[in-house]
Amino acid sequence: MKAGIVGATGYGGIELFRILNVHPQIDDITLYSSSQAGEYFEDIYPQMQRGQSHILADVEPDKMKEDLDVVFLATPAGVSIDLTPQLQGGKAKVIDLSGDLRLKDQSLYKQWYKKEPAGEAVLGAAVYGLPEWNKENIQQADVIANPGCFPTAALLGVGPIIKERLASPSSLIIDAKSGVSGAGKNPNLITHFAHAQENFQIYKVNQHQHIPEIEQQLQQWDEDSQPVTFSTHLVPMTKGIMATIYLQLNEEMTVEKLQSLYKSYYEKEPFVRVREMGSFPCTKDVYGSNFCDIGITLDPRTNRVTIVSVIDNLMKGAASQAVQNMNLLFQADERAGLLTLPVYP
Amino acid sequence: MKAGIVGATGYGGIELFRILNVHPQIDDITLYSSSQAGEYFEDIYPQMQRGQSHILADVEPDKMKEDLDVVFLATPAGVSIDLTPQLQGGKAKVIDLSGDLRLKDQSLYKQWYKKEPAGEAVLGAAVYGLPEWNKENIQQADVIANPGCFPTAALLGVGPIIKERLASPSSLIIDAKSGVSGAGKNPNLITHFAHAQENFQIYKVNQHQHIPEIEQQLQQWDEDSQPVTFSTHLVPMTKGIMATIYLQLNEEMTVEKLQSLYKSYYEKEPFVRVREMGSFPCTKDVYGSNFCDIGITLDPRTNRVTIVSVIDNLMKGAASQAVQNMNLLFQADERAGLLTLPVYP
Amino acid sequence: MKAGIVGATGYGGIELFRILNVHPQIDDITLYSSSQAGEYFEDIYPQMQRGQSHILADVEPDKMKEDLDVVFLATPAGVSIDLTPQLQGGKAKVIDLSGDLRLKDQSLYKQWYKKEPAGEAVLGAAVYGLPEWNKENIQQADVIANPGCFPTAALLGVGPIIKERLASPSSLIIDAKSGVSGAGKNPNLITHFAHAQENFQIYKVNQHQHIPEIEQQLQQWDEDSQPVTFSTHLVPMTKGIMATIYLQLNEEMTVEKLQSLYKSYYEKEPFVRVREMGSFPCTKDVYGSNFCDIGITLDPRTNRVTIVSVIDNLMKGAASQAVQNMNLLFQADERAGLLTLPVYP
Amino acid sequence: MKAGIVGATGYGGIELFRILNVHPQIDDITLYSSSQAGEYFEDIYPQMQRGQSHILADVEPDKMKEDLDVVFLATPAGVSIDLTPQLQGGKAKVIDLSGDLRLKDQSLYKQWYKKEPAGEAVLGAAVYGLPEWNKENIQQADVIANPGCFPTAALLGVGPIIKERLASPSSLIIDAKSGVSGAGKNPNLITHFAHAQENFQIYKVNQHQHIPEIEQQLQQWDEDSQPVTFSTHLVPMTKGIMATIYLQLNEEMTVEKLQSLYKSYYEKEPFVRVREMGSFPCTKDVYGSNFCDIGITLDPRTNRVTIVSVIDNLMKGAASQAVQNMNLLFQADERAGLLTLPVYP
Repeated sequence: MKAGIVGATGYGGIELFRILNVHPQIDDITLYSSSQAGEYFEDIYPQMQRGQSHILADVEPDKMKEDLDVVFLATPAGVSIDLTPQLQGGKAKVIDLSGDLRLKDQSLYKQWYKKEPAGEAVLGAAVYGLPEWNKENIQQADVIANPGCFPTAALLGVGPIIKERLASPSSLIIDAKSGVSGAGKNPNLITHFAHAQENFQIYKVNQHQHIPEIEQQLQQWDEDSQPVTFSTHLVPMTKGIMATIYLQLNEEMTVEKLQSLYKSYYEKEPFVRVREMGSFPCTKDVYGSNFCDIGITLDPRTNRVTIVSVIDNLMKGAASQAVQNMNLLFQADERAGLLTLPVYP
Repeated sequence: MKAGIVGATGYGGIELFRILNVHPQIDDITLYSSSQAGEYFEDIYPQMQRGQSHILADVEPDKMKEDLDVVFLATPAGVSIDLTPQLQGGKAKVIDLSGDLRLKDQSLYKQWYKKEPAGEAVLGAAVYGLPEWNKENIQQADVIANPGCFPTAALLGVGPIIKERLASPSSLIIDAKSGVSGAGKNPNLITHFAHAQENFQIYKVNQHQHIPEIEQQLQQWDEDSQPVTFSTHLVPMTKGIMATIYLQLNEEMTVEKLQSLYKSYYEKEPFVRVREMGSFPCTKDVYGSNFCDIGITLDPRTNRVTIVSVIDNLMKGAASQAVQNMNLLFQADERAGLLTLPVYP
Repeated sequence: MKAGIVGATGYGGIELFRILNVHPQIDDITLYSSSQAGEYFEDIYPQMQRGQSHILADVEPDKMKEDLDVVFLATPAGVSIDLTPQLQGGKAKVIDLSGDLRLKDQSLYKQWYKKEPAGEAVLGAAVYGLPEWNKENIQQADVIANPGCFPTAALLGVGPIIKERLASPSSLIIDAKSGVSGAGKNPNLITHFAHAQENFQIYKVNQHQHIPEIEQQLQQWDEDSQPVTFSTHLVPMTKGIMATIYLQLNEEMTVEKLQSLYKSYYEKEPFVRVREMGSFPCTKDVYGSNFCDIGITLDPRTNRVTIVSVIDNLMKGAASQAVQNMNLLFQADERAGLLTLPVYP
Repeated sequence: MKAGIVGATGYGGIELFRILNVHPQIDDITLYSSSQAGEYFEDIYPQMQRGQSHILADVEPDKMKEDLDVVFLATPAGVSIDLTPQLQGGKAKVIDLSGDLRLKDQSLYKQWYKKEPAGEAVLGAAVYGLPEWNKENIQQADVIANPGCFPTAALLGVGPIIKERLASPSSLIIDAKSGVSGAGKNPNLITHFAHAQENFQIYKVNQHQHIPEIEQQLQQWDEDSQPVTFSTHLVPMTKGIMATIYLQLNEEMTVEKLQSLYKSYYEKEPFVRVREMGSFPCTKDVYGSNFCDIGITLDPRTNRVTIVSVIDNLMKGAASQAVQNMNLLFQADERAGLLTLPVYP
């Protein structure tokens, strides 16, 4: 199978290259870059050198849609709005890692992304690529809107409890923490090492563009669901997301019951691991892997549930989830190329 | 003035030594250690060498209470329960940095600390040393229960809004994050660099001993206050605490009004800085200082308030707040010895 | 093929498990631990859970040497001295990751490790497992002494120039820097996060036990080689080694010539990458991989060569190099199971 | 006394502001910025807010040289070449923290800084501000060339041994390591957190502009001194420099004698601390202070000396050394405003 990666020199692109490089079904990888076309990828990233070098090709949609089996768009917001329609209708399937195709409601995109939204046709074709909750649709799709990093952690964490309507949707608070790579590769004062290290920062309070993405899926599960409170923090580490999630239960229940609900929801999912009672994951537990680890508890004093959900933001939060979607698109083993255990220590 | 520090080789003790060393009213510092008595402090911490060395003295309460003007107890839980009564009744005032004297209700201490509580007499004498909310009592006291690091950040953050009964007490969620030094100096697997770095961990979910301390003060402000949800996380940094605090408002109000409420509550406080609207502090903004910086916002979509409160856990969260209390005990300028601005970068 | 890992819960053991878990020739992994036998590996390391759990087995050499094809000893200094002879003579090949079998001269082991050395028989059987310089002997061996992390970086860096006798051996200075995981899993004050972070430390100046290991190999290349100066520093990062190496050239030469010498020495080696002129690797360039990356320059002002050699201390410096040796022992593709590119960012 | 800081928003400028803010002899601080004049310093750095705000003033040399007692130039290379002459001849003394006035030989500046050098007059007036070795000249000066961070660590480390001609100058190798703040405040790919964290990098091999500065002072001590080998590395920490220094002794001597040589050279210096035998400083030992800590050893196997010298690069390597120079210029206590002990942990 032939894969292409557009935006290969960004953090998402590099991670995709690393995974596809050892993926059993991928024979050939072409890397594309509009800003650095003509340069060698391995001159920019000498650590990626193994055997033959990869020249960064110009983005030529007409050619790509016939030559490639799958195209990954690891591009900044706004690019895939135009590019995806040009890639449709040929052999290639498209997996978009940006936020451009995730929101079905164009006005929400406009409001939260401050850009013109994608057209209805491409939005209609795009399937939200959260495999644990949308597997059948993904398998039929031609275009995948790969979920955002925060929504992945948050939604896998709240899915069962919201779906079962056990908690009050208006009580939902998601306090999320991310490593600095989530801010992308372009350097600025916030991501300068001397500023970010030995520092813990909050940003985009109540204004993060992942809020409507989370709310859209919540409404799929429960049409009564309400606006959520969602905060994002920058942790002095490179990779990893933890979402600490708070929910008020509708009625009294035991933590054992909650635990077994989660276990049963995810028991067939190869990449979601529900922890034993009293055990909570840390972000390093999933570092460099496609896992989402979840811990749950319940405070009888407040009848409030605390759910802890962790992922590697560049893996399950971006590149490896995209490859999981690719595996589903092509009816391969969902786990192909994604078997590596987390790095430790 | 003569000061003594018991538990001088722990993190709180070192920080106290550093501050008192350049405090204008302190002429003489004696360091005490039960486990390392007889050794020189500067042999253990060569970086603290300046001029004459300090021998670690045995803890002799009878002598200390007459020789010293003030004794700081920077000791593990359980020590000051017995030691404080032995230090009372002489010249010396006592400032206890441990959690032993903070909870007025002995059964709560027993429940959360899993130890036998202090006696009623000493608990009756101990004044909770949160200067911004208890200044007059502190000035009259002989024994100070210096607040915990998390309660300091949390209470300064929620004080005005709870006092004014603007929000539902049962909606209060405090999602707190701390640097690793909060776990103390004894090495273990959790604080091992190779485990803690590039990692974000949650711990003691719903079980942290600072919960009853927070609730006790909330009840001072509002007797209808309820059990709170309080989570603690370990950030891969040495120092700093951020408390991200969520509250449901009782009625609609503007963020401008909230902002000016906080400004007016703290305008005379030299160590609490309320940020301008739309600005939130990060932990580095208070690194190495006695400041608590606070940012506030309000989401009109949910009518929920988000308050961000940051401190240096070893300074305003321990040692420098203890010195602020000392200044108040002796009617000195509250700011004496605490004028240093935060380290940056 | 069946593999066993003794000392599975240490850092080297975990890394071995992670690699062997996806190694195409390994069907079965048994984990051994003398201190934690009977526990489940996945209870201790829940992040390693995938499918069936692994019980930690007792170390039973008689059984192991017949049941297993290969045994990895990821044990503290002193253990394999006795254990290796008990494992010899059966089906299993032994790869020892400790320093016990590396020094041929028993008196040197005694002097630098402060322990009784291994017997002559096992030392005679043990082949030094630095594949790039000892491949043929490794392929014939039954027992491998897997090199130390620092010697791996240092020797791959100086090999060509020493072998060709282009520099004065007595001028050799190796200034080495390592991530904290090199100090092992047992927590202590030096590796406490609050001490090690935002800190750069030197340790064991002129006293590191890797010094005689380096010198032994230097003498293989040049019998006139002299005692070296070797310093080790602790970097506030988890993994990675850089050796900055200084050598005085015997005669004037060009950097181009040096560069092509290195290129030609290593051109057939899949895991050593010599950088283009003027380019130097950083430790992240090899993070999570089996690569050793090397950069070289020459200062015409001093006629001194600077060589920069980087590895991942737990991979090429321990576990993945052990697997590379295993591949050679069993005449597999040297690269089997080791194709993953470095993690970035 | 009135002080001015030009370039107040850079890392050196902030550190200067922090120190002068609590300096007993400074009554008034004016901050200057050519790029951000008119803005409030505290709007850019809210963490520096205490009392009245500071507007960033335009740089007006004519006015400054009469209004101020001392002007600190914390500006990028090239600025003080023109600015210093305009500030000369009035009341104000000038302390330049850039490299512009350090090299007496104009051709060396041209060669290493790739810029046009300062004029002879100002170079003639500028005194090299390394107080421990040049105190009397500093006390008479009107213009101070404040030393570079690496030269400060390196020269304090090698001074006594070079001055006494105990070692071969051509054998001198300085392997230096610095925190990321040394690269300044402007963000780039090298200092991006996601690149710099969990990474150890070498840069400017044999090409650092501090090389001629070191060599200039070496020649003051020993006119036979030779070109040195000097390497610089980037450590994943914000602040701190360690120079590991290697020298071949001319004749055999004991480490005790070396030790007492260093002790006697620096015994009257308040900011250089020579460690006891067998003890070596780490960078955290001087964090946030004006100290330079030095450890020395000697390997009898090679007759080579290893000297370890650590400073805080923004303090003794920049701002606090500049204040030390100011104290000397104005015949104040050399230690005024610089008494704070290092931050720990």
